[in-house]
Amino acid sequence: MDPSLDPNFVPPLEVPEGSVPVMQPPAVDMPPIVELALDEDMVPGEGKNDDDSVPRPRGGSNNASRISLGDLEEIPRGISRQARSLDDYEFPTYRLRTRLKDPEKHPLVVVACGSFSPITYLHLRMFEMALDAVTESTRFEVVGGYYSPVSDNYRKPGLAESHHRVRMCELACERTSSWLMVDAWESLQPTYTRTSLVLDHFNEEINVKRGGIDGRKARIMLLAGGDLIESMGEPNVWADADLHHILGWYGCLIVERTGSDVRNFLLSHDIMYEHRKNVLVVKQLIYNDISSTKVRLFIRRGMSVQYLLPNSVIHYIRQHQLYINDSEPVKMVLTK
Amino acid sequence: MDPSLDPNFVPPLEVPEGSVPVMQPPAVDMPPIVELALDEDMVPGEGKNDDDSVPRPRGGSNNASRISLGDLEEIPRGISRQARSLDDYEFPTYRLRTRLKDPEKHPLVVVACGSFSPITYLHLRMFEMALDAVTESTRFEVVGGYYSPVSDNYRKPGLAESHHRVRMCELACERTSSWLMVDAWESLQPTYTRTSLVLDHFNEEINVKRGGIDGRKARIMLLAGGDLIESMGEPNVWADADLHHILGWYGCLIVERTGSDVRNFLLSHDIMYEHRKNVLVVKQLIYNDISSTKVRLFIRRGMSVQYLLPNSVIHYIRQHQLYINDSEPVKMVLTK
Repeated sequence: MDPSLDPNFVPPLEVPEGSVPVMQPPAVDMPPIVELALDEDMVPGEGKNDDDSVPRPRGGSNNASRISLGDLEEIPRGISRQARSLDDYEFPTYRLRTRLKDPEKHPLVVVACGSFSPITYLHLRMFEMALDAVTESTRFEVVGGYYSPVSDNYRKPGLAESHHRVRMCELACERTSSWLMVDAWESLQPTYTRTSLVLDHFNEEINVKRGGIDGRKARIMLLAGGDLIESMGEPNVWADADLHHILGWYGCLIVERTGSDVRNFLLSHDIMYEHRKNVLVVKQLIYNDISSTKVRLFIRRGMSVQYLLPNSVIHYIRQHQLYINDSEPVKMVLTK
Repeated sequence: MDPSLDPNFVPPLEVPEGSVPVMQPPAVDMPPIVELALDEDMVPGEGKNDDDSVPRPRGGSNNASRISLGDLEEIPRGISRQARSLDDYEFPTYRLRTRLKDPEKHPLVVVACGSFSPITYLHLRMFEMALDAVTESTRFEVVGGYYSPVSDNYRKPGLAESHHRVRMCELACERTSSWLMVDAWESLQPTYTRTSLVLDHFNEEINVKRGGIDGRKARIMLLAGGDLIESMGEPNVWADADLHHILGWYGCLIVERTGSDVRNFLLSHDIMYEHRKNVLVVKQLIYNDISSTKVRLFIRRGMSVQYLLPNSVIHYIRQHQLYINDSEPVKMVLTK
C-alpha cells in the first residue's frame, strides 16, 4: 500500500523541486524582526509604513517604551494600516520575520483567502492551528501570516464593502495577534482575482521583490477551511490549471472540520492526490462552528455575538452599522 | 398532551409563589449603575470597592474621562478585585445594575458555578447566550452575572489554586465584558460548599443585605452547561433536597450542547420535571467544544491556546506557569 494512504500518515510537505530554490540573501531593506512568541514584550514599531492615524499606546513616553504582558491583547504595536486605493498600496511586512529561528528550516508564509465578512475567532484560530501543525510535522518555520480579503466584485451575499472587511481584519490582528497581518491588494483589485494569482502576488512581493526570508525563498501556502477544499471537488468552480498552480507550486494547509474526512477527499481528487505532498491536513482538535454567516444573522436579530469575534471588530460593526439591515436570504444556518 | 412537552415549548420561567415577593426598596447604599449595553461608553467607576492596584486607563485625566468605543475591550473600568481571604471579603457589586430598564420585568442575577481552571471563551459565551435567551423568552431582565469558582477543597484534577482561578476569571471579565463579575466567596471557603448554599449566599448578599434590585427581590439562577445537568441525573452526586432547593427556590439556565437533548432529560428527571417552569433551556446555536481540560492539555503540550480564551488569561497562565507541568491523567479529551 502507498504509505501516504495510511490514515495516520502525515505528508512530509516537501519543497517541490525547482519551485523554491535556496538563494543567497539579496541586498534588500528588510523590515524589523517581529517575533511570533507571545511571551515577549512587544515594542511599538517604527517602520516606514507607520501611520499617525493608528492608535498608540496611551500614556506618556515615560511608560510607553515597554508594554507589559497583560497589555499585549490591547495595544496595537508598530502596526501599519492598509491603504484604501491601489495607488497608495504597500505590501505589509511589519510583522514578517526576517530571520529564521532555526536555520535548518524553510521559511513559510501562510495566506488565508476569503470574504471575512466579518472575521471571526475561527478565522484567527485557524492560523494558530496551522502554526502548531507546521511546527510539529514539517521542516518549515512560519515567518508570517496574512489575510487577503476578497474584493467587492466577488458579489457574495453578506459581503460588507472591502475597506470595512480589511479594517475589521486589521483590528482583529492588531489587537489579538503578534504575527498576523492583512494585505489589501486582492480587495483593491477592480475585478475578482483568482486565488492562484493572489498567491503569485505574495510570491512576487516576498520572494521576487524582497528576495525571500533570511536568504531563502519562502514557501507561500494557502490556508483553507474544509469548505474551500470541498469546493475544489465541485465542477466549474476551480480551473484545473489553477488547482495545479496552487497545489503544485505553492501548497495548502487544510483545516479539517471535526467529523469531516479531508484525507478521503484528498484520495478521491486527482489533482489533489497528485500534489498530496504539498498538502498538510490540520486537525481541528477543538470543534468550533463559528461562521460569518451566523454572525451576520445574529447581528440582524439583535443577538449577542460577543466571544465569537474580537470586541474591537464588534465595535467597528456597530459604529458602521454593518449587517444590521442586511436582507440576504439566510439559508439554514442554524445547527439542528 | 402537556404543552410543556412540545419540543418547541419555551417554559415561562415564572416566579414561584412566595419565593421572591416584591418588596419596597430599602434604604441601602447602592453601587453606581453600570449598563449592560455594549454600545455605551463606560466611565471608570468610583465605587468604594475600587483598588489602587487595579489597572487604570492610561493617559492624563484630560482624556481619561471618556473611553472610546474601540477601547471597551481593553480597559478595565471601575473594577474591584476580590480579596484573597475571607476576612477581607466583600461581595462585588460594581457592575450589578440597580435599576431595571423595563420596570415591568423582574430582576435576574445569573450565577455560574464551576472550576474555571482556566476560564475559556465558552464560559464567557454561555452568559451571552443566557442573556439573549432570558431577554427573548422571559419576563426577567438580567441585572448581573457572576462566576463563582469552586474552592481548592473540590480536589478535582487540573484545579489551579483558587486565587489563580479567581484572578483569571477577573481578568477575563474585566477586559472583555461590561457586565460580568467574579465572586470569590465560594473559593475562599475552608471546605467544599454545595451549590445550593452558594446560591443562598448570592440571595443573602443581594436580596437580604441589599434588599434586592430596584425595589424587587432579584431572582438568582444557576447557569449550567450540559455536563452539570447530566450530573444531576447520576446517583449520589446531588442530594434530592439540594436539587429541590436549587430548582424550586432558584432555577436553572441550561446551555444545551448541540446534539444533546436536554428537554428529554428534563422529562425523564422527576425533580427537574417537577420544577420545569424554573428551567430555561438555552440552545447553543453555534457549536463550541472548548473545554478547560483541553486547554490544560494544549498548554502541557506546548500548543497554542490563543482564541480559545482571552489573551489576558493566557498571559496570566504563562506568568504563573500554570498547567505546564500538570501530570493529571488526561482521559480521552480529543474529539475523534
